[in-house]
Amino acid sequence: MTVTNDPVVLMKQEVGKAAAQRVHSDTIIGLGTGSTTAYAIQYIGERIQTGELKNVVGVPTSFGAEVLARKYGVPLTTLDVIDKMDLAIDGADEVDPQKNLIKGGGAAHTREKIVDSLADVFIVVVDSGKLVDKLGSTFLLPVEVIPMAVTPVIKALEKLGGKTDLRMGVKKAGPVVTDQGNLVIDVKFDNIEDPANLEKTINNIPGVLENGLFVGVADLILVGEIIDGKPRVREIS
Amino acid sequence: MTVTNDPVVLMKQEVGKAAAQRVHSDTIIGLGTGSTTAYAIQYIGERIQTGELKNVVGVPTSFGAEVLARKYGVPLTTLDVIDKMDLAIDGADEVDPQKNLIKGGGAAHTREKIVDSLADVFIVVVDSGKLVDKLGSTFLLPVEVIPMAVTPVIKALEKLGGKTDLRMGVKKAGPVVTDQGNLVIDVKFDNIEDPANLEKTINNIPGVLENGLFVGVADLILVGEIIDGKPRVREIS
Amino acid sequence: MTVTNDPVVLMKQEVGKAAAQRVHSDTIIGLGTGSTTAYAIQYIGERIQTGELKNVVGVPTSFGAEVLARKYGVPLTTLDVIDKMDLAIDGADEVDPQKNLIKGGGAAHTREKIVDSLADVFIVVVDSGKLVDKLGSTFLLPVEVIPMAVTPVIKALEKLGGKTDLRMGVKKAGPVVTDQGNLVIDVKFDNIEDPANLEKTINNIPGVLENGLFVGVADLILVGEIIDGKPRVREIS
Amino acid sequence: MTVTNDPVVLMKQEVGKAAAQRVHSDTIIGLGTGSTTAYAIQYIGERIQTGELKNVVGVPTSFGAEVLARKYGVPLTTLDVIDKMDLAIDGADEVDPQKNLIKGGGAAHTREKIVDSLADVFIVVVDSGKLVDKLGSTFLLPVEVIPMAVTPVIKALEKLGGKTDLRMGVKKAGPVVTDQGNLVIDVKFDNIEDPANLEKTINNIPGVLENGLFVGVADLILVGEIIDGKPRVREIS
Repeated sequence: MTVTNDPVVLMKQEVGKAAAQRVHSDTIIGLGTGSTTAYAIQYIGERIQTGELKNVVGVPTSFGAEVLARKYGVPLTTLDVIDKMDLAIDGADEVDPQKNLIKGGGAAHTREKIVDSLADVFIVVVDSGKLVDKLGSTFLLPVEVIPMAVTPVIKALEKLGGKTDLRMGVKKAGPVVTDQGNLVIDVKFDNIEDPANLEKTINNIPGVLENGLFVGVADLILVGEIIDGKPRVREIS
Repeated sequence: MTVTNDPVVLMKQEVGKAAAQRVHSDTIIGLGTGSTTAYAIQYIGERIQTGELKNVVGVPTSFGAEVLARKYGVPLTTLDVIDKMDLAIDGADEVDPQKNLIKGGGAAHTREKIVDSLADVFIVVVDSGKLVDKLGSTFLLPVEVIPMAVTPVIKALEKLGGKTDLRMGVKKAGPVVTDQGNLVIDVKFDNIEDPANLEKTINNIPGVLENGLFVGVADLILVGEIIDGKPRVREIS
Repeated sequence: MTVTNDPVVLMKQEVGKAAAQRVHSDTIIGLGTGSTTAYAIQYIGERIQTGELKNVVGVPTSFGAEVLARKYGVPLTTLDVIDKMDLAIDGADEVDPQKNLIKGGGAAHTREKIVDSLADVFIVVVDSGKLVDKLGSTFLLPVEVIPMAVTPVIKALEKLGGKTDLRMGVKKAGPVVTDQGNLVIDVKFDNIEDPANLEKTINNIPGVLENGLFVGVADLILVGEIIDGKPRVREIS
Repeated sequence: MTVTNDPVVLMKQEVGKAAAQRVHSDTIIGLGTGSTTAYAIQYIGERIQTGELKNVVGVPTSFGAEVLARKYGVPLTTLDVIDKMDLAIDGADEVDPQKNLIKGGGAAHTREKIVDSLADVFIVVVDSGKLVDKLGSTFLLPVEVIPMAVTPVIKALEKLGGKTDLRMGVKKAGPVVTDQGNLVIDVKFDNIEDPANLEKTINNIPGVLENGLFVGVADLILVGEIIDGKPRVREIS
């Protein structure tokens, strides 16, 4: 681990370490995406290398998680061959007081939801800037949709009160394409009053694969903060 | 139109003709899939060729519908350029007394639901063998799912009480792949008591794109029957 | 292994066993698709279970091979984590005297070619009915193509002298879709004089992913025959 | 058209206008991607609106081209319903003295090659900075590859002398995904001596869909230059 004085980096390292400490031997763990989760994967790998953890296998939620797991020596498996998942560790773009989340800034929320929702215990690692009173305050809600349905889905989302934007690519012409070959509509809702209902309503629009609302999935939030210039990890359970 | 004495063919032709009669000039119509709908497309084309219908454009629900529309001279457009759809005509695998449907025998229910649910009026054309008291009595419920999620989705469907089968290909090795690159799980539920709720619950399972329940979408059912050896068309509205 | 008197089954078992005998410990092997290869996977699994083979991992060429490998206890890996492949065992639809092949009856030739062509030694297992003097004599050449390019690719293939058919689905409406989300054009060439050149020419048509010609890839053909009512395995190397 | 004094913009407008002038009534034209081509689409639309051009339909090479064509009133069609294409106008990332091209900076070279190579006349619009003596001097060669084959294709490209980079996303986690659901490997070759041969060799690597070499496809290059502060259009034919 690179030694640093940057308090934000220190904070992320602390949160990642705190999550990695919760991993036990003989378990299957979901490996999330993002800069804080990356430290968790690194620490899990170190605990495996020292022999402190035995018989731990990971299920990556993304290509990035897969690359990191290989780099730090965390053995991998797939959803097809496991019966259960003990723990998942992942980041979030917003967390509300009921531990509901918005995810999808990386357009990977479908795969993340498939993995995270299987875990007996799902730990979310975030910095305190991600805590909000109401979902949708600071972050757009990503909705993954099959290409032929973009126009009708946009209309359906606007009927629900959302303002929509098709996410456009930077290193490709045209829209961002997900790992499943679909597109992402980012939606601004002024106020998400009932996330559980909105999640179901959006997923029921024909042509929608998955939206970024994670309701009732997270069990524990590990929040990184800097207090008096020092990193702290607070738990919300 | 081929002249035939086969009462089943005659019945399908009558139902298709009855649906085609409901098309008006200056409208956008969704064109469904299946043997009865094929006659509807043929009749619409004939009405366009004779000049009886003007300014009618179709949105196909499948590759097959597209091929037929071109053959019979029905101009086509796409969902991206239309603001509304006036009418859709499509078949079904099961129809219950509340006009709820199961579709998906052709693994095309996602695209069909996107198109059919946009129409101001959705007409279903079936023979009387498709009428059931309760959905799920005679036909398995198709669920389209992204490949990486097959195993967890199967477990989630079995928790809901379903018996599952991954649909396998005939002219390809391994499973049937949909036009969207996904797989189809056929589910046997002993009793579908609340289709509206089941539709939403299944669509909310992470990794599910769309299931074959069409609840509250159909407006009119045209049922073909043979009574005293003669084809009849009955309306359920 | 089920005991049988059926000479065709006995022959396939003999060929599968002969291929499985060529597997050594500490190797990575490509696992092909088809009824004869299935016996090879079963025998490899049995040799692993008895401890005769150690440290063997497989790379499946298809969903079917993956299922069989799990059933018979052959550990699996992916192309992303291996540096080389020692051996591959796969079937073929046609084999010519130069050990060139046509594959793709199962629409899986792209993945099969990726795996088979990586192996240091590629063993083909077939019955004698697959041997032909010239490729294309008995079997259509499958060409995998992205959906938007079907029409121009069909024209390009016909300019090359082929008669084309878009492969249609049986348990889905419309065309067969491959595991990559593409379509398959089956092409009849009267005479494939220069398979190496034809393979490259077709793969260079814009929109073509891969065709079913395997030129210069196979190292050894194990041919099952029934002579005087008894199964025999002949080698072509 | 916005009035501007920016010589680069003026130059692109001049080149776009020069290309648009070559469009005749009663033709089908391929509409390319990029900032210069965008001006061509705009001018074609203006000529259609004034009635100077009649019965012109476009085939877009990308989502972006489609959006622009609708904005400027150029009617669109698809490859499935046309028999020939009269003209295509598209940009390029590099052009050599033999009018061979490298394209693919926007990860759209597969669809572009399908459309551009169908046209009787393919006009390339570029600024003079895109002219090179040898392809590969200034721009990496993009290779589109199916996800499961990334690692073996990278090895095959490195055997051919290339240095490879998997193109990573900016507004998505992990790699850029193309409109076909595939990945892009950008390859640095020190020297592309024989582009025709390299194009075929790369397209023949199992798992490669299409590379960005366009050899023998372009008929006319329209080169924008600024000479004495004024925009000029030079022709290379």
